Amino acid sequence: MKKGVFITFEGNDGAGKTTVCKGVEAQLKQAGRDVLYTREPGGSRIAEAIRDLLLDPDNTDMDPRCEALLYAASRRQHLVEVILPALAEGKIVLCDRFIDSSLAYQGFARAIGIDAVYAINRFAIDDCMPDATIFLSVSTETGQKRMDLRGDKNRLDLENSAFHQKVRQGYEELIRRYPERITVIDAEPDQETVIKAAMQVVRKVVEPYE
Amino acid sequence: MKKGVFITFEGNDGAGKTTVCKGVEAQLKQAGRDVLYTREPGGSRIAEAIRDLLLDPDNTDMDPRCEALLYAASRRQHLVEVILPALAEGKIVLCDRFIDSSLAYQGFARAIGIDAVYAINRFAIDDCMPDATIFLSVSTETGQKRMDLRGDKNRLDLENSAFHQKVRQGYEELIRRYPERITVIDAEPDQETVIKAAMQVVRKVVEPYE
Repeated sequence: MKKGVFITFEGNDGAGKTTVCKGVEAQLKQAGRDVLYTREPGGSRIAEAIRDLLLDPDNTDMDPRCEALLYAASRRQHLVEVILPALAEGKIVLCDRFIDSSLAYQGFARAIGIDAVYAINRFAIDDCMPDATIFLSVSTETGQKRMDLRGDKNRLDLENSAFHQKVRQGYEELIRRYPERITVIDAEPDQETVIKAAMQVVRKVVEPYE
Repeated sequence: MKKGVFITFEGNDGAGKTTVCKGVEAQLKQAGRDVLYTREPGGSRIAEAIRDLLLDPDNTDMDPRCEALLYAASRRQHLVEVILPALAEGKIVLCDRFIDSSLAYQGFARAIGIDAVYAINRFAIDDCMPDATIFLSVSTETGQKRMDLRGDKNRLDLENSAFHQKVRQGYEELIRRYPERITVIDAEPDQETVIKAAMQVVRKVVEPYE
């Protein structure tokens, strides 16, 4: 039985999702809210093992459809073990990437098709769509710069900039498709400004549940 | 470009699929045919790694939908790396379990629904359905007896007999749905008799391609 509020954060690599998520988490906690920050695989042992396969730089021969199915599998296990129990307890769940990442990365950028990837993800999430999604918008140059600063690179980070450009286009298509669910936030400014903008969106979503 | 013939073998655990597959393979080779016997994960390194997760007896907390997605992912990679190249070379491919196993085990026995599991497997196989499927029919008692003789048990083998009964019912539903693709063979008799019956089916499927 879902009682909490489910908010996802999306954006290109280097958009600052984790920083913003954690900033929002801190402010909600300060306001006395019961909040959970999570990201796939989120401490689920099985989802973690699936993730290891996906991010192994050696797996360059992985077929795009296999990759999409593995993301959906990892998502499912994380949802069942982590997100659904927290929502049942009435928590605000902030999730760093969710279904839209698969639609943008595998569906659009890998050219499998958004609808096809949506179908397997609907199977995975079984009606548990986010109540709201915050898209952090940065230029691919800013994204690249922030990724370079981070250092450690996994298989997806190693994709070239044409790929990240396509991911961006994929997100733009999703923003057109789901204007009621997805809110775009300019994530070029400093952290404080972006977190403040994100908090405004979060408040609007959380209030009706209070 | 597909030029070969794709035949799958299905049945409950302990039906004797591997023995019959290998018997058919031997006879086709003797007749000078270019044949490949395979089973998932079939030597694909990535599919193998997915399979290790699925068959790990410790993973009892795996969600059924996660399990179904992992089978589909493993199937995809094996298809792309092993089956499609062999079919492109004009080979007869004999595959020990394929899409129907997921429909019977995850779709029916785990009660996710045959149609839902079919949808993610259509995504995985992308129109490469078998030209023919041979279902080896044994009573669940015979299946159990043959499994006991084999010794080593993986996670699925440890399911109770009510589960294997449901798998059987799932296959019966598939046989009703796809009477043109699936041929039922009585697999209770001795190996030689069953292999002979399977060869009759295989010949009928292979002939039109000669």
